Amino acid sequence: MLHKIINLTVRDVRFPTSLQQHGSDAMHSDPDYSAAYVVIDTDLGLKGFGLTFTLGKGTEIVVCAVEALAGLVIGKPLQEIVSDFRGFYRLLTSDSQMRWLGPEKGVIHLATAAVLNAVWDLWARAEGKPLWKLLVDMDPKQIVSCIDFRYITDVLTEEEALGETGFLMHENQMLKEGYPAYTTSCAWLGYPDQQLQQLCTDALKNGWSKFKVKVGADLEDDKRRCRLIRQMIGPNNTLMIDANQRWDVGEAISWVSSLAEFKPLWIEEPTSPDDILGHAAISKALAPLGIGVATGEQCHNRVMFKQFLQASALQFVQIDSCRLGSVNENLAVLLMAHKYQVPVCPHAGGVGLCELVQHLILFDYICVSANLHNRMCEYVNHLHEHFTSPVVIRDAHYLPPKDPGYSCEMVESSVKRHQYPEGEVWKLHRT
Amino acid sequence: MLHKIINLTVRDVRFPTSLQQHGSDAMHSDPDYSAAYVVIDTDLGLKGFGLTFTLGKGTEIVVCAVEALAGLVIGKPLQEIVSDFRGFYRLLTSDSQMRWLGPEKGVIHLATAAVLNAVWDLWARAEGKPLWKLLVDMDPKQIVSCIDFRYITDVLTEEEALGETGFLMHENQMLKEGYPAYTTSCAWLGYPDQQLQQLCTDALKNGWSKFKVKVGADLEDDKRRCRLIRQMIGPNNTLMIDANQRWDVGEAISWVSSLAEFKPLWIEEPTSPDDILGHAAISKALAPLGIGVATGEQCHNRVMFKQFLQASALQFVQIDSCRLGSVNENLAVLLMAHKYQVPVCPHAGGVGLCELVQHLILFDYICVSANLHNRMCEYVNHLHEHFTSPVVIRDAHYLPPKDPGYSCEMVESSVKRHQYPEGEVWKLHRT
Repeated sequence: MLHKIINLTVRDVRFPTSLQQHGSDAMHSDPDYSAAYVVIDTDLGLKGFGLTFTLGKGTEIVVCAVEALAGLVIGKPLQEIVSDFRGFYRLLTSDSQMRWLGPEKGVIHLATAAVLNAVWDLWARAEGKPLWKLLVDMDPKQIVSCIDFRYITDVLTEEEALGETGFLMHENQMLKEGYPAYTTSCAWLGYPDQQLQQLCTDALKNGWSKFKVKVGADLEDDKRRCRLIRQMIGPNNTLMIDANQRWDVGEAISWVSSLAEFKPLWIEEPTSPDDILGHAAISKALAPLGIGVATGEQCHNRVMFKQFLQASALQFVQIDSCRLGSVNENLAVLLMAHKYQVPVCPHAGGVGLCELVQHLILFDYICVSANLHNRMCEYVNHLHEHFTSPVVIRDAHYLPPKDPGYSCEMVESSVKRHQYPEGEVWKLHRT
Repeated sequence: MLHKIINLTVRDVRFPTSLQQHGSDAMHSDPDYSAAYVVIDTDLGLKGFGLTFTLGKGTEIVVCAVEALAGLVIGKPLQEIVSDFRGFYRLLTSDSQMRWLGPEKGVIHLATAAVLNAVWDLWARAEGKPLWKLLVDMDPKQIVSCIDFRYITDVLTEEEALGETGFLMHENQMLKEGYPAYTTSCAWLGYPDQQLQQLCTDALKNGWSKFKVKVGADLEDDKRRCRLIRQMIGPNNTLMIDANQRWDVGEAISWVSSLAEFKPLWIEEPTSPDDILGHAAISKALAPLGIGVATGEQCHNRVMFKQFLQASALQFVQIDSCRLGSVNENLAVLLMAHKYQVPVCPHAGGVGLCELVQHLILFDYICVSANLHNRMCEYVNHLHEHFTSPVVIRDAHYLPPKDPGYSCEMVESSVKRHQYPEGEVWKLHRT
């Protein structure tokens, strides 16, 4: 079956999360978690669903970029795309006129992610498998054929990449136990202490042992909040802190040093996501304190991740399913991280990010890393009800999805209600 | 006079340059030089004009992004903006919801450049001065107050920056002689040898002594073309080569080494514009051959330039008036380059880029570098007729503009004819 793509639609879907300070951090005080949501139609009726995550305003720009890319997709049989997926990736990212707008970064790359996520979803559905299983069942040669090695061959050649992935025997373990998760839901920056305490108590009861706290706006507040949460979770559970790019390099080092007594495993996004050398300096300064540096949710492509690894600028790689060029580019990053033996701890939360990225980390464990030390996937407990195959969490673990596809089909009534600006949720907010 | 901004319009203007292979290079085979063109209206009737440069397809995405930023500009008095220009820059680049789409990179940053270029144009017009003169007449404190130092204080603090700029006495020299230029017009990749020869002959006659050749598609072609042009210009004129990101790191080193016999001053954009460490490796390998590395036209913000300088990854800084966040961010880069004593050789060409960037390099010479060794500004001899104050070149030098503003007001009839897709030029192309 060819599954020729005959149409691609994209919609601007926004959730008014800012009303309750869900998602608030030191740089993003009022995010409305949103998505440019793509649906692909094929001649045989099979559909593919994809999205990229945004924070509200400006989603219409990503929608516009998806529309600009649609012409490169419509008319192509799925079989033609996946039989040369590297070539198709290159087609989307290297258009002679449009690459000026990136290349492979910002709006145009977010749009590429949305489109390619939908293509991967379509492929997995056509094969009747959840995406992680589609990947696990591929042989290394096919995995590698999806990756564009342009600009990374100084660190990972195609030949080396073949040696970085293979069939391992942890699939049953994953099916039984799931992949370990940590929660960010307890301590958004805008939450008052009492709410933080209540959420933390509930989370501990539900089996969570790894907690992330937003920091970076005010040092005394950060100390109070970190002390509070460390007291509640005790010395043996894991605490991570996240500054969402708030500091310059020197400030990051001194601020985080002041929080060292609370024993965070990592400081996430201490400074500009573009500052590889800055992250390297911060990593070096914090290593004696036992604090690692984590970054990636705004690391815009494989060339940046390559350098973060080369420069020992991070100790935790946080891939994102919607910032990079979909599965294709994430595969490159997983293999490079494995070469450098740096653990991958995916960024999730947002809307749909948990649903998507769980597939990638399952593949990583089963076929690449075979290691759970200091590895865990972010989890945030909201907006899952808008998906037809929402994530399943049991005992603070992601259970492998069973439905065919990439898990990002949204409930159509949710899409309609949250479409911006015409959906009824937004009509209500304006009145 | 307050000059309150009461409206901002943006149009998609495209020139069908691909028809004659103007602008063709190893990665961009058929660019249609284009612009998202901004006009600001004020209550008192004064207007500001700005643009960002694009390559055709996708300009509508930048237009959409400008429209998303317009709300942050409309209603503001010019005086309020320029009295805290750093704050206004931060307002545009750090919107809590929109920064996710960058931050400070790609489409959203190109749009920021277009808007801010128009604001700077408005300011210069309000003062009755060409932009370079507005800058030259500012005291260092005011210059520095326009710069957002976030993420660069590890290399340049506000205090240090004050010491990097001052009043020097070269203004008269510039008014008399102009600023040295080099030409890229002779050797676009798509030009046949005969055309290249003819253009080179003409350029030599017109006083040009510095020439850039596009390379990177085919090594034997490159050798033939470099030999041809080196023979024509002789050993004492300057040759530069430009690969427009075509190679991986190892390939760049071996390819350029094969062209060393033609004594290029620099290799421009040997690899991904994001690959700081890659450029550092290439710089190191080519230094013994006397070939420098130049990059910048797709270097997306000051944080990237900072690292290129820190890592000795370039020997020529190519600022761009439309990629970075307008004058504000370019000032930061000029001052950092001066601290590292790396010459600035602006990227120009495109449409409007020569008109804009000449102002910045004049300021750089008069107030910052006071040095012309290995310094020159790119020039391409097309599309100037569409501007109301086109660049004036005399003896291969840019003569300082005299009209008030930032020189990027377009001739209204040109805009109308080239508006995409409704302008008559595009209607003709479709029939």
